[in-house]
Amino acid sequence: MTKSLGDRVRALVFDVFGTLVDWRGSIAREAQAMLAPRGVNLDWLAFADAWRAQYQPAMEEVRTGRIPFSKLDVLHRRNLEVVLKAFAIRDLDEAARVQLNLAWHRLDAWPDVAPGLKRLRERYRLAPCSNGNVSLMVDLARRNGLPWDAILGAEFARDYKPKAVVYQSAASAFDCEPAQVLMVAAHSDDLAAAARAGLATAHIARPDEKGPGRGESGPSVPVDVAARDLLELADRLGASID
Amino acid sequence: MTKSLGDRVRALVFDVFGTLVDWRGSIAREAQAMLAPRGVNLDWLAFADAWRAQYQPAMEEVRTGRIPFSKLDVLHRRNLEVVLKAFAIRDLDEAARVQLNLAWHRLDAWPDVAPGLKRLRERYRLAPCSNGNVSLMVDLARRNGLPWDAILGAEFARDYKPKAVVYQSAASAFDCEPAQVLMVAAHSDDLAAAARAGLATAHIARPDEKGPGRGESGPSVPVDVAARDLLELADRLGASID
Repeated sequence: MTKSLGDRVRALVFDVFGTLVDWRGSIAREAQAMLAPRGVNLDWLAFADAWRAQYQPAMEEVRTGRIPFSKLDVLHRRNLEVVLKAFAIRDLDEAARVQLNLAWHRLDAWPDVAPGLKRLRERYRLAPCSNGNVSLMVDLARRNGLPWDAILGAEFARDYKPKAVVYQSAASAFDCEPAQVLMVAAHSDDLAAAARAGLATAHIARPDEKGPGRGESGPSVPVDVAARDLLELADRLGASID
Repeated sequence: MTKSLGDRVRALVFDVFGTLVDWRGSIAREAQAMLAPRGVNLDWLAFADAWRAQYQPAMEEVRTGRIPFSKLDVLHRRNLEVVLKAFAIRDLDEAARVQLNLAWHRLDAWPDVAPGLKRLRERYRLAPCSNGNVSLMVDLARRNGLPWDAILGAEFARDYKPKAVVYQSAASAFDCEPAQVLMVAAHSDDLAAAARAGLATAHIARPDEKGPGRGESGPSVPVDVAARDLLELADRLGASID
């Protein structure tokens, strides 16, 4: 008899932006709270989307070695300058730009996340395996009550997903073989890369992550388990599923 | 008026072995629990001291670049072989050696540590800045209820204290200037190195760490604050002390 997935894995590592927290709604809210009182009026969700659209190209500079590793806060700040220009927002002093950039530290978790992690923590070691930096992860954890054992991911590995070293360094930090670690994400490309690095994979449906119906309601790649949310994932790992 | 130390710092990072946990009593207990039933009889505290005596020389191999970074569990295992030989313990199979090496993951905290960290966490970001690896820190945190925001220190920096990069990478992960971080330790040499790296420093008295009267009851170097234990440290940081 095959060991169940729940018995094979010893640690769970998580994508964060989109999988655990609603970056789009939160960034729109934070930008509006900061800029509307200064007389700026625009489509706040479009502002969030535009900022996020700069995310992959900025990390690609690091992945390819064109620039040395820089934490995501630094890349977000550089991207913010691009987006402010695109939206023709000029009169924003340095302190306000710093503050606006920290909007990424004030994202709200989806409602299943804190109770789901609490259940999963009884059986598994838990860490984010995000491209977000340590301080960003710490602020999201404190804001949303995420009970991490450690903060792993890009800053720990000094490179960005989907590079294999990011997933593998998280497994190694937990004294696990890659196959003993379950990567949890709402993005099929992240899970495909984790699987190539040797990890087990779990897909979480976040169908509205990028706007209504514009997230993934299911995986488009083979995964070890797919669940509606973290509570269903906890159920599935608790049960013998093979 | 000068800002008080409690207002100047934003994060606290901690030495762990000796400062937060009783390595000597715990290793003696774990070694006895494992080896006595196998007919081994020896001075268990002397065994703990002998194992710990190998600690600095092993890390020096990494600090000087003679060997690549290896996590402390690996160095502890290598040191265990030396100590078993010194105590003429031969009949111990591989599984038992692995298990005995994990004794370092089962150390008990001093009684003030969990309540002290709980109070300090209300105001500051907290992380270990230990030479112990991530999984070791995670196990000690779960065992003793240590509410870390992140696990920083040697494995994060990929080098060992007292190298400056270990202290400075912890500050950087928390988005702090070194002077905004308070290094807390029961060892004056650790605090002297942290101060050279730019951090503020707090000494905690652990007079019996290495046996009765063989720990530090006070700092032998200049520090920003010295306290009996973490509860007194919390009092001191809460108050305006300049």
